[in-house]
Amino acid sequence: MKIVVVGGVAGGASVAARARRLDESAEIVVLEKGGHVSFANCGLPYHIGEVISDRSRLLLQTPESLRETLDIDVRVGSEVIALDRGAKSVTVRELASGREYVESYDRLALCPGADPIRPPLPGIDLPGVHVLRNIADMDAIKAQLDAALDAAASGPARTGTPVRAVVIGAGYIGVEMAENLQHRGASVTVVEMADQILPPLDKEVSVPVEQHLRSRGVHLHLSTAAAAFSQRPGGGLTVELQSNVFVDADLVILSAGVRPNVGLATAAGLELGPRGGIRVDTHMRTSDPSIWAAGDAVETPHTVLPGSWITPLAGPANREARVAAENICGRDTEYRSTQGTSIVKVFDMVAGGTGATERQLRDEGIEYRAVHIHPSGHAGYYPGTAQMHLKLLFAPGSGRLLGAQAAGFDGVDKRLDVLATVIRLGGTVHDLEQLELAYAPPFGSAKDPVNMAGFVASNVLQGDLVLWYATDWPAAVEGTRLIDVRTPEEFEIWHIPGAENVPLATLREASRGWDRSAPVRLYCAVGFRSYLAYRILVQRGFADVATLSGGSNTFRYRHE
Amino acid sequence: MKIVVVGGVAGGASVAARARRLDESAEIVVLEKGGHVSFANCGLPYHIGEVISDRSRLLLQTPESLRETLDIDVRVGSEVIALDRGAKSVTVRELASGREYVESYDRLALCPGADPIRPPLPGIDLPGVHVLRNIADMDAIKAQLDAALDAAASGPARTGTPVRAVVIGAGYIGVEMAENLQHRGASVTVVEMADQILPPLDKEVSVPVEQHLRSRGVHLHLSTAAAAFSQRPGGGLTVELQSNVFVDADLVILSAGVRPNVGLATAAGLELGPRGGIRVDTHMRTSDPSIWAAGDAVETPHTVLPGSWITPLAGPANREARVAAENICGRDTEYRSTQGTSIVKVFDMVAGGTGATERQLRDEGIEYRAVHIHPSGHAGYYPGTAQMHLKLLFAPGSGRLLGAQAAGFDGVDKRLDVLATVIRLGGTVHDLEQLELAYAPPFGSAKDPVNMAGFVASNVLQGDLVLWYATDWPAAVEGTRLIDVRTPEEFEIWHIPGAENVPLATLREASRGWDRSAPVRLYCAVGFRSYLAYRILVQRGFADVATLSGGSNTFRYRHE
Ligand SMILES: Cc1cc2nc3c(=O)[nH]c(=O)nc-3n(C[C@H](O)[C@H](O)[C@H](O)COP(=O)(O)OP(=O)(O)OC[C@H]3O[C@@H](n4cnc5c(N)ncnc54)[C@H](O)[C@@H]3O)c2cc1C
Ligand SMILES: Cc1cc2nc3c(=O)[nH]c(=O)nc-3n(C[C@H](O)[C@H](O)[C@H](O)COP(=O)(O)OP(=O)(O)OC[C@H]3O[C@@H](n4cnc5c(N)ncnc54)[C@H](O)[C@@H]3O)c2cc1C
Ligand SMILES: CC(C)(COP(=O)(O)OP(=O)(O)OC[C@H]1O[C@@H](n2cnc3c(N)ncnc32)[C@H](O)[C@@H]1OP(=O)(O)O)[C@@H](O)C(=O)NCCC(=O)NCCS
Ligand SMILES: CC(C)(COP(=O)(O)OP(=O)(O)OC[C@H]1O[C@@H](n2cnc3c(N)ncnc32)[C@H](O)[C@@H]1OP(=O)(O)O)[C@@H](O)C(=O)NCCC(=O)NCCS
Repeated sequence: MKIVVVGGVAGGASVAARARRLDESAEIVVLEKGGHVSFANCGLPYHIGEVISDRSRLLLQTPESLRETLDIDVRVGSEVIALDRGAKSVTVRELASGREYVESYDRLALCPGADPIRPPLPGIDLPGVHVLRNIADMDAIKAQLDAALDAAASGPARTGTPVRAVVIGAGYIGVEMAENLQHRGASVTVVEMADQILPPLDKEVSVPVEQHLRSRGVHLHLSTAAAAFSQRPGGGLTVELQSNVFVDADLVILSAGVRPNVGLATAAGLELGPRGGIRVDTHMRTSDPSIWAAGDAVETPHTVLPGSWITPLAGPANREARVAAENICGRDTEYRSTQGTSIVKVFDMVAGGTGATERQLRDEGIEYRAVHIHPSGHAGYYPGTAQMHLKLLFAPGSGRLLGAQAAGFDGVDKRLDVLATVIRLGGTVHDLEQLELAYAPPFGSAKDPVNMAGFVASNVLQGDLVLWYATDWPAAVEGTRLIDVRTPEEFEIWHIPGAENVPLATLREASRGWDRSAPVRLYCAVGFRSYLAYRILVQRGFADVATLSGGSNTFRYRHE
Repeated sequence: MKIVVVGGVAGGASVAARARRLDESAEIVVLEKGGHVSFANCGLPYHIGEVISDRSRLLLQTPESLRETLDIDVRVGSEVIALDRGAKSVTVRELASGREYVESYDRLALCPGADPIRPPLPGIDLPGVHVLRNIADMDAIKAQLDAALDAAASGPARTGTPVRAVVIGAGYIGVEMAENLQHRGASVTVVEMADQILPPLDKEVSVPVEQHLRSRGVHLHLSTAAAAFSQRPGGGLTVELQSNVFVDADLVILSAGVRPNVGLATAAGLELGPRGGIRVDTHMRTSDPSIWAAGDAVETPHTVLPGSWITPLAGPANREARVAAENICGRDTEYRSTQGTSIVKVFDMVAGGTGATERQLRDEGIEYRAVHIHPSGHAGYYPGTAQMHLKLLFAPGSGRLLGAQAAGFDGVDKRLDVLATVIRLGGTVHDLEQLELAYAPPFGSAKDPVNMAGFVASNVLQGDLVLWYATDWPAAVEGTRLIDVRTPEEFEIWHIPGAENVPLATLREASRGWDRSAPVRLYCAVGFRSYLAYRILVQRGFADVATLSGGSNTFRYRHE
């Protein structure tokens, strides 16, 4: 059997490696148009930032190592320019020589990945406007950055002004680039079309990260986009924003998303899915029974949402590829779904999510409930922890977990992984109550944040707690008695306009004379004290009580 | 309704707090013989170590705060000395005054915890021989340590010799105490009866931690126990070990395990379980329908093993208590099981486990398979990571996950929690293959260690990989051809006696002439290269091949 693989990085190299292990006698050819295979795309920003100083560490395998250990015929600089499904062959162009040849296959794997989007703006092709997808892109950015830093520090044109970089798009890669450029000493401006950074997160969770980014000196322009790039006399670029702001830049990074590489597939008449990725079945087989596909170019079912989705992430690419290889080699393995678990480090903070966001659930018309809590990453009395923002989305009837997001400092990745696991296994918020997680003071709490989120969510489902949401303010409190149950000192510093202060410790006494039929809306700092207050009032006959999900903490990130 | 709770810490305070939230009108009395309620037992070693410098941070709640926010009647210094189930009352002794009185209950919760074991050895009651369970114990140890350190540094008897501490028992608390005492500058000796530290872990996983402990200057005596304590002329103690070694000590910490506090329960005729803890049903109700129990004093079903077990850990205590409170308040909530998820920080290392150990599975006669892998905590090319030791135990047929253990530096707690979650939800090693965990270079790998463990385990179940185990050496390699597939340089430095070196890159060629019917046993550093070698040989017709689980890495920790 002869297996040909188009693309030689996360998806392609993984198909080839797994196929070899399953079939020692197959002929396996990997065709990669770029100069490298098996490199760590995800590490590229960190080499630019010199956090990963040794460039060679990013090259996980080479054509030679793949030949030696796995007997794979890897051809770099070899672009597949046509696919003839009838003849079962591909046409390959050797980029160095220009030579073209035809390579036949018994089974083909398409793993061409995705290309960064380059919006058709004036000046988009100017030197100095970069995308970041591969080693060559990285080398180009780093070379320009190094030169600019050198020039600023010691060149003849030394001006004392720092190197200025503009990052277009505040998704994960944009934010990583902002951090790494800043780390090198550049002055960084980030431009994002949406009204928030990190669009895969809901806004209550992204705003704390946004503030952290600003606090580290990164300039943010939200709700606007680049309109044009132009060369400045004397060097450098000017970026014109739609908001009519002009930002000077020595370097521009476009990180405005990626588009699946489906050129070969469409030209050959393979079916695409509704979102424009290559359509595959749960065996990662395309509409042609001799062709499989994996990685950023494909659509897969979503774990929580209906329909198929493009999820350009390395974990799915690697696991899809492994499944594709198994089926290519005659096994019967299913790739069930992708849930979009993702994470990013942003200076000292960490943020990420898994499953559906509230926005997606709303867009898809799926009923859900939400809770927001702010537990600390580990026991508060043990040094080195901080509050995190943890949001849970779950089904109203069954309590099935639909999505989770978190932002904070320590222990965020762990909670995301646990919640991702529960979503993957179809678990509910009641399962979260029962999870037995590893506890010692440096690592968690006897009631872990995940347990705690489960308690709160279960209380909501059982009707032991009724929440109101910052998103619904001010409508949610109109015509109600708004009670702040924090201490007078806390109230003094900040409170929601119109609130009365009735500290929790005095509530039992104070509420004796109140009208029990009048609606009461409660809040405190994070929701714990107002929960206690809720239980007190409801059990004393108050008819209409609700407490603010996530307290003033979530509220302020939403409204300030 | 009147609810009386015996014990006011993890279990007792949690019962009371949850009961109040469910029943605003109940009378709730907490009786605690010690001077404090709601303190952080788990933080005690770290205050001695001055990692947690502010003692008051350990007092999470006080009688006053529980009164104010939860309207709970908390009485410290109040020991329950008798239980009259017929009369539904307890007899309370106020320790300060000696006054005794009877307190009636409608529903009683027993949360008396456990007491540290004090083996009846000569000299066990000498001053300077301590246990650590509560704030008073902590204060006593810290006072003595502070005084000894002061004296050594500046007192008239200043000798230049450091303060010497002996810790008896190398379980989690013992190891934490060793670290914290060392951190204060004491010279620490740990004595452990078993032939390994951290008995809840299998030996391959505990030995790396043992070596780390020794590398940090802690002296270890394994396979021996304290035989006697005696006062030294001029101050201090001498600890005599069963091995006839004598160790001088200014301070001795007994951390040889705990025994459930069942005195009250047995005197009142409540049933005990087979392991000597209070017997409860899945509603945490004892054999008396008006009495519930939770925490270190009870036995609960094990998630994986048959029978009921005592698991003296804070997470279970807190969640058992919450379930008990719900049932006390008339709800119908089940506490399903405890799986013994536990973790400990040991200087820079972290180790822990969840579910059953190999020892337990063997003892219970449960069939299992095991794999050992050594992935890095996050992407190897991103700084700050190290190899961990990860061991998985699973059922041969279904692949159900039965247990997992890990030791390493970064990301150990996260993988334990993910694996604990899978065990709790009844997942299999095939589920591990599919988990979609949060990946960016600082946090993991595109194929997370947990995925990787799932791959290897699934390969074993599917017959794609046959393992041999370090535990079975040398028998496992007798009469076989033992091949080391690492590089000559690696072979040179160390190899298993009797091994031939055939580097992976040369294996296809070299094996052409070999006898395919002769048994071959392979190994490499961690098991990856020998897995590739296994696939090559088996598919080339070799009849009897197996590769060493965990490679030389696991082997050397087992045999050196
Ligand atoms: C800067 C950066 C940071 C990232 N960080 C993360 C992260 O932290 N976490 C995460 O999960 N994901 C991250 N990703 C995404 C992740 O790298 C991708 O999801 C993953 O690499 C997709 O794998 P793939 O094989 O589909 O595509 P790629 O890895 O892009 O490989 C596709 C290859 O196919 C080649 N190719 C395309 N067409 C042809 C053709 N016609 N002929 C021959 N070769 C062809 C391309 O040259 C390319 O090398 C990051 C990506 C980038 C760029
Ligand atoms: C030093 C130390 C470190 C620990 N570290 C960890 C860790 O990192 N992770 C972890 O999971 N667990 C840890 N634990 C274990 C954890 O603290 C216990 O599992 C948990 O506290 C058990 O709760 P409990 O309510 O059953 O018992 P306790 O918390 O001990 O509370 C029982 C209380 O009942 C009182 N009492 C007993 N009898 C009577 C009576 N007759 N009348 C009145 N009062 C009575 C006792 O005085 C005691 O205060 C640690 C324990 C210690 C001592
Ligand atoms: C490196 C690359 C070629 C894949 O390599 P691979 O050979 O599948 O190897 P990995 O290192 O991922 O190891 C996985 C295999 O080793 C096996 N394995 C790992 N440790 C093992 C151990 N200790 N014992 C036995 N087997 C082991 C696994 O079972 C798995 O084999 P299987 O798929 O046949 O079951 C490919 O992932 C790649 O090109 N990656 C770089 C690009 C990328 O992923 N970018 C995005 C992230 S930055
Ligand atoms: C502190 C202690 C009294 C328990 O307190 P508690 O009142 O149950 O409070 P916790 O802080 O654990 O919070 C849990 C409750 O708050 C609720 N909650 C937490 N955050 C919330 C939020 N943001 N919004 C709404 N509710 C919230 C939870 O739902 C849960 O309530 P429930 O049980 O009624 O569902 C008890 O755990 C204790 O004494 N601990 C110290 C001893 C100990 O555990 N030692 C071992 C570990 S060191």
